[in-house]
Amino acid sequence: MNKIEHIGIAVKDLKKANKLYAQLFGEAHYKVEEVASEGVNTSFFKVGENKIELLEATNKDSAIAKFIEKKGEGIHHIAFDVDDIEAEIKRLKSEGFKIINETPKKGADNKLVAFLHPKSTNGVLIELCQEIK
Amino acid sequence: MNKIEHIGIAVKDLKKANKLYAQLFGEAHYKVEEVASEGVNTSFFKVGENKIELLEATNKDSAIAKFIEKKGEGIHHIAFDVDDIEAEIKRLKSEGFKIINETPKKGADNKLVAFLHPKSTNGVLIELCQEIK
Repeated sequence: MNKIEHIGIAVKDLKKANKLYAQLFGEAHYKVEEVASEGVNTSFFKVGENKIELLEATNKDSAIAKFIEKKGEGIHHIAFDVDDIEAEIKRLKSEGFKIINETPKKGADNKLVAFLHPKSTNGVLIELCQEIK
Repeated sequence: MNKIEHIGIAVKDLKKANKLYAQLFGEAHYKVEEVASEGVNTSFFKVGENKIELLEATNKDSAIAKFIEKKGEGIHHIAFDVDDIEAEIKRLKSEGFKIINETPKKGADNKLVAFLHPKSTNGVLIELCQEIK
């Protein structure tokens, strides 16, 4: 794993949160993107080599809507940048981690992504992501 | 803010979690440190330029013990690296953020640290940290 690619934060209102996080970082988000398959609108902020992704649900069945209902707004996941997502999935599976997406799927920000189940990682939802070239 | 300095993860059993995260990253933690003033034992892992800090409570009044009791194990805070923590505190205060430590305090890993209240940041506990030179 090369670095923390981004941290995903679940928010109720993306417009309000974009304004707040621009104040926090002293710099506005650099893009917004809808991921219809996940039922989310996202925005991205750069902090040096890392990113913060804000996530707003677009429907009540979205994982983000369910997360906020259960836990409230807050940190949703950590994404780690990897060079070869399929090799990492294979390695982590052999180490006993529970992989949610054994076949990587297309995520936001031009990435192939796969999640590990938080039950196998002390309650932390971990995403692996590989830039699509 | 220069980068994500680290992500803090609250765990019940540091020894077990150290083993699990070593499997996750393919590399063991590089140090453990007790912060007696906070009632925590910590361990640190490197992921590129970023770090993961695992936090275990050493007593039941520790903020980490209370966090786990309320929310379970999981991501506790995000720490951003800053060059001048006092200037950042001043700037963020003027932007309306609620600062928990208006005077920075000594944290783990040779840092001056200050926290922002999660109520002013969509439920995210944010730490500012500046390396002590």
